[in-house]
Amino acid sequence: MNILDIIDKKEKNQKLTKEELEYAVNGFLSGEIKDYQMSAFLTEIDLLGLSDEETLNLTDIMLKSGETLNLGIDTVDKHSTGGVGDKTTIILAPLVASLGVSVAKMSGRGLGHTGGTIDKLESIPGFKTSMSLEQFKNQVKKIQIALVGQMGNLVPADKKIYALRDVTGTVDSVPLIASSVMSKKLASGSNKIVIDLKVGTGALVDNLEDAEALGNLMIKIGKHYHKDTACLLTNMYEPLGLAVGNSLEVIESINTLKGKGPKDVTELVLDLAALMVSMEKGISEEEAKAKALENLQNGKAYHKFLEWVIAQGGNLEGLKTAQNTKTITSSKSGYISKIDALAIGKLARKLGAGRLKEGDEIDPEVGFVLNKKVGDKITEGEALITVYYNDKQVSDEEILNCFEISDYQITPKLIIGKLK
Amino acid sequence: MNILDIIDKKEKNQKLTKEELEYAVNGFLSGEIKDYQMSAFLTEIDLLGLSDEETLNLTDIMLKSGETLNLGIDTVDKHSTGGVGDKTTIILAPLVASLGVSVAKMSGRGLGHTGGTIDKLESIPGFKTSMSLEQFKNQVKKIQIALVGQMGNLVPADKKIYALRDVTGTVDSVPLIASSVMSKKLASGSNKIVIDLKVGTGALVDNLEDAEALGNLMIKIGKHYHKDTACLLTNMYEPLGLAVGNSLEVIESINTLKGKGPKDVTELVLDLAALMVSMEKGISEEEAKAKALENLQNGKAYHKFLEWVIAQGGNLEGLKTAQNTKTITSSKSGYISKIDALAIGKLARKLGAGRLKEGDEIDPEVGFVLNKKVGDKITEGEALITVYYNDKQVSDEEILNCFEISDYQITPKLIIGKLK
Repeated sequence: MNILDIIDKKEKNQKLTKEELEYAVNGFLSGEIKDYQMSAFLTEIDLLGLSDEETLNLTDIMLKSGETLNLGIDTVDKHSTGGVGDKTTIILAPLVASLGVSVAKMSGRGLGHTGGTIDKLESIPGFKTSMSLEQFKNQVKKIQIALVGQMGNLVPADKKIYALRDVTGTVDSVPLIASSVMSKKLASGSNKIVIDLKVGTGALVDNLEDAEALGNLMIKIGKHYHKDTACLLTNMYEPLGLAVGNSLEVIESINTLKGKGPKDVTELVLDLAALMVSMEKGISEEEAKAKALENLQNGKAYHKFLEWVIAQGGNLEGLKTAQNTKTITSSKSGYISKIDALAIGKLARKLGAGRLKEGDEIDPEVGFVLNKKVGDKITEGEALITVYYNDKQVSDEEILNCFEISDYQITPKLIIGKLK
Repeated sequence: MNILDIIDKKEKNQKLTKEELEYAVNGFLSGEIKDYQMSAFLTEIDLLGLSDEETLNLTDIMLKSGETLNLGIDTVDKHSTGGVGDKTTIILAPLVASLGVSVAKMSGRGLGHTGGTIDKLESIPGFKTSMSLEQFKNQVKKIQIALVGQMGNLVPADKKIYALRDVTGTVDSVPLIASSVMSKKLASGSNKIVIDLKVGTGALVDNLEDAEALGNLMIKIGKHYHKDTACLLTNMYEPLGLAVGNSLEVIESINTLKGKGPKDVTELVLDLAALMVSMEKGISEEEAKAKALENLQNGKAYHKFLEWVIAQGGNLEGLKTAQNTKTITSSKSGYISKIDALAIGKLARKLGAGRLKEGDEIDPEVGFVLNKKVGDKITEGEALITVYYNDKQVSDEEILNCFEISDYQITPKLIIGKLK
């Protein structure tokens, strides 16, 4: 068996055996198959797809490429497929932990134009995103919450493939997303899995058809491993919340945890918490949601967040945003009809908030804070958005191109669907 | 502009501007765009194609990535798209030079399962395949023939892209072949171009439709630059000639130059020589072919070959084939109905005659010598093929799988078509 034959076979769109997929994944992991060869293979999968059986096999191979966690306690894992301004995990994890649901979570770094939870949390000085398995287990047992980047021995194949996809334009492939997400979720040992599947220009999938296919595929994989899996399809045509950029998003998360967050962020966090808590506690979603709302308002969620930050060594006082700011105003009046999440994400990356290629440094301090959301009224001269920048800049024109202002008012739908 | 946006645009199969193609090619050349990113982009082109306009632009960008040769003398260039056992250049170049047609040629190394003229010539101890531009020009002026690998400053973009395609399964893309071949031919400064376009399992294109598209595309590019271009479509379903492997093919070339070559090799060389000599000298193809045949028989072509080898420092006495040989015999009687050129090429690579990835060492001594060709009669126990091997081996079964023996006799057609 050799990788050129496998690439040729896939080019002809012939079904790959588990042995062939194993050869490709393990060969890449061992270094025998080079990154440029794996990139060709991943690009083929991106353009031609994989069958469900091939995707299940790929997931299984990735899962078995390393160790799997067994925490010995019931945990619920939530995963977001990633979007612009998506700080959900930073709020949701302490919120459900404050309700007695244990969260033992692995998160990723920035992927394409979207940010990563690990990058965001690392904007808190001192916040450690790696620890030993023993420390991780102990922290979950003690405070019901722990979050790390991928651990060295869990799903090493995904770690290496994920880094390559990030810089080769193959982040939007349905089977690659499904196998990547699910191998990590399965390896991390949670009993129940809730997926926040973003749909829109700023997400990995930008149409409902792909989103439903991806959601159903992940649920199918979950079932295959006897894991209770549910999926919310949520809006990512405009950024989530107002803040985009690492430390700016942490600040918005803190506000939300104090009950003072943007409407959409708060709504999404409550809906996801309702799903997680109801699945774990066997109560209705309505009841779970009411309890979650209460903990945002009574400070318990925020208190759990502080406990978590301290446990992982973070110091919130050192959280910094860029000194330079500029505010862009609207040249006309009307209603905001579009804020292009993808374009905003790319501009944030241009400012330094994300990475273009493997190993690029990011600047935690830069980004945007929106003053308006889709559906909001705006008058000429009113602030649209504030830019936080350091050494890299974006032009006013580039920013204005992300917005559309119309005469009519539209009301965006946050929760597009639910799959179970 | 950034490469991820270009990869995304191509994924949507949108037409690329010349500036975008320029960014990709020049960025890869400068190292700013990584090999794994270029590999993704090339794989997209392989799967989705390019328009003729994009291919013309790509050719022009590659051509302008380096210097172009101006030899100050009329030369005719012949190019083969490569096949298994294709030693044509080694015979044809001295043959037409012996008829007063100057050949100033750049050749390549092994690509995929096919060999490369440079690798083959380097099996002659001392044979130098690089020299300065001044030396190159002087040699052509003095003995009408010089052959080198790519020179450092000619089409550097193709050199780097070609090496990557070789190891990422993107050697069979029509627009990539056309732009690669034509940018090199245009840069090398020949006035007239003859292309031996191989069609079959052992060639870069294995069907007549792709071959005609490729041939017409190359002629279109040639015309755009006012170069007289012609194209022969020739059989590559079975290996050309009897020998496959570097030094074995040089030996077969010598035999052919002495008028004792296999029938198909001799026929192909004469047809190509007829085209080249008639284009350059303004005589009929029939007349040119008769002169070429004469020079194979009267020793003039072989004498020119010896002159050439000496001029480039080679010593034919040191030409070596592997000490270990085994001969595989047929277990049944009938007619040879198939010798899979692709499979033979891959087995030769497995023996060490070719490379799987960039930088792999090759073994010049190993390969195969066929005892039979398609259409030949064979009786049980008669020799099919002899294997020359050193440290790497192939099984009898793998070799036998390359052959089909039937009750009926077929007569393969060597020259499939001509495009002008």
